Amino acid sequence: MNLSSISKPTLLLDKKQCQANIDSMAFKASKHNVLLKPHMKTHQSAKIGDWLQQSGVKAITVSSVDMAEYFANHNWKDITIAFPINIREISRINRLAEKITLTLLVVSEKSIRLLSQELNHPVNIYIELDTGSNRTGLKTDQLKEIYTLYNSINDAPELNFRGFYSHPGHSYNSRSKGEIRKVHKSVLDQIEYLRENFQASQSNYSICIGDTPCCSTGQSFEGIDHISPGNFAFYDLMQTRIGSCNLDHIAVALAAPVVAKFPKRRQIVVHGGAVHLSKDSMNFNGDTIFGMVSPLSRKGWSEPYPSTFVTALSQEHGIIQCSQDSFSEIQEGDLLAVLPVHSCLTADCMRKFKTLRGTSITMMPRP
Amino acid sequence: MNLSSISKPTLLLDKKQCQANIDSMAFKASKHNVLLKPHMKTHQSAKIGDWLQQSGVKAITVSSVDMAEYFANHNWKDITIAFPINIREISRINRLAEKITLTLLVVSEKSIRLLSQELNHPVNIYIELDTGSNRTGLKTDQLKEIYTLYNSINDAPELNFRGFYSHPGHSYNSRSKGEIRKVHKSVLDQIEYLRENFQASQSNYSICIGDTPCCSTGQSFEGIDHISPGNFAFYDLMQTRIGSCNLDHIAVALAAPVVAKFPKRRQIVVHGGAVHLSKDSMNFNGDTIFGMVSPLSRKGWSEPYPSTFVTALSQEHGIIQCSQDSFSEIQEGDLLAVLPVHSCLTADCMRKFKTLRGTSITMMPRP
Repeated sequence: MNLSSISKPTLLLDKKQCQANIDSMAFKASKHNVLLKPHMKTHQSAKIGDWLQQSGVKAITVSSVDMAEYFANHNWKDITIAFPINIREISRINRLAEKITLTLLVVSEKSIRLLSQELNHPVNIYIELDTGSNRTGLKTDQLKEIYTLYNSINDAPELNFRGFYSHPGHSYNSRSKGEIRKVHKSVLDQIEYLRENFQASQSNYSICIGDTPCCSTGQSFEGIDHISPGNFAFYDLMQTRIGSCNLDHIAVALAAPVVAKFPKRRQIVVHGGAVHLSKDSMNFNGDTIFGMVSPLSRKGWSEPYPSTFVTALSQEHGIIQCSQDSFSEIQEGDLLAVLPVHSCLTADCMRKFKTLRGTSITMMPRP
Repeated sequence: MNLSSISKPTLLLDKKQCQANIDSMAFKASKHNVLLKPHMKTHQSAKIGDWLQQSGVKAITVSSVDMAEYFANHNWKDITIAFPINIREISRINRLAEKITLTLLVVSEKSIRLLSQELNHPVNIYIELDTGSNRTGLKTDQLKEIYTLYNSINDAPELNFRGFYSHPGHSYNSRSKGEIRKVHKSVLDQIEYLRENFQASQSNYSICIGDTPCCSTGQSFEGIDHISPGNFAFYDLMQTRIGSCNLDHIAVALAAPVVAKFPKRRQIVVHGGAVHLSKDSMNFNGDTIFGMVSPLSRKGWSEPYPSTFVTALSQEHGIIQCSQDSFSEIQEGDLLAVLPVHSCLTADCMRKFKTLRGTSITMMPRP
């Protein structure tokens, strides 16, 4: 990579590491006999979709109708929109359902009724489960409600009951592999309870779960048919905190030019702010941080500087609190690599990547 | 506005309110005999630039070379880049300097030296002052350092010393007009100190300050020549907390479709998440909130529902904690208006507006 070609905040992608992350998850899925239907919201990129396809992926997960349209236009034929159906988008859903195998999530009878009135083409339906994240979905012990939805789905000719979907997002509260294991175990227990207590006439319904922490560290996927993690393609600092990965696994970093040094505060300012990294932060030894900072060479970034963190962001400014050593080393005009706290949001802000070989990779256009 | 035309998260702009905010700031500037050089980073839009021009604005402020290029391409001839000069962007700076009256910020001798070596066209230079925000700039009592920069500027033929610039961002910590007044008073005191102790050979150098809280509420601008607030065009919840404005002044809101209701938690889920609103949050009576929620009719949004807040965001989901009343009233399929915590970042996420009459307004393309 020619560093002199980088003059402004640029999202670098370590293609090799990204492909290794993909291969590793694909291998794990195959080993545990579950189908990997990766979530594309992290990278939103047809090119990275190609790499997933090369790893054997045939079906994908997205979080919006916009994203489903983008990937359908890039030849994906089996797409799950992992977001409760928004009935206002019915005409675009209809066009998608005509073109591809479309799977939708429902959490209410009302949405099933409206779908069944408006759909002209068959779609698959997952009932969404809330396995502890308290975001969307029904609890597995709400059997009466689950049966109500299930029966409504079966009554609607265009709706094919496909099974259950859950994003155990509460795994993000974990701070060690042990804590993730507890969340994962509780998810598997809930699935087992559902399998034992819910009787569908379709014996081949499937269950899909979707979070990167459980999928990265889980050692059993008993009762699970599909997994749909997304973040694993890039990972990030948050995932290292959770216990899903190591710093080495992180495949994206923001190249940020150093524009000022302030010796009294031992702070460095880079062009790289909230519109580049996003405002997502995490707690690190009691401090709120927005990124870690690594030296950047033509081969890519290396290990982060010790005790050197992005501690504040405004719209375009990133403030880096340095150690004595990093402050001496880093000079105005240098490029630094900032490892993001949350790579999905950083990618969403930046909307394109540059590989370590200098190739540009685009994301779907901002809808 | 035809609400049925809105099917997905859409950033609404109340043009009338935005123009009123602009007129009010333009009037205030004229009353206090200071020049309004508004910051365009909030809206990043040529169209809203036209409204500013109609209010008599002739010079503007931006936060990046990209933004300067965009507005230069939209006929703005006098642009200040209010960000410490990033020398890696020198070739684009040179092209801008050829075309328009360009003003740059410096905080170090090194950047002045590199600028003077590389520039082919004259530019104006502000020395950036840190009047308390601890972000970038020199303190007004660092007279020795200020003179060093000043002398280097005067030694460089292409650099015209223009004066001093400061963004008193610490006004954002205020929680009342009284607290803002204290910050503003301290800024004016520092400026007065500088005016008394710094002797320039150019008697006509100017001082520009740039934050919305001080510019919205300040009653004296003694010693100030230019002001460059940005957020005032839209305002937002944070500005109501700071004391800069009322809820009525907020000119943007995210239209978000309701996709699910959870009676046990009294929570509603909308399509409208971190990629729409940004992750900026604020404390409201002890809770962290990401937005307030208003009913939406064809005429626009009205007062927020009492005790009803966006309390969590994931990438696409917004979780709204409701009161008993708002929970009963709001139905799946409805559109709600979410008043943003930080309108600059919400606009940056959304990258276009729809006026209450249904007209689309674009922003500069993502660089």
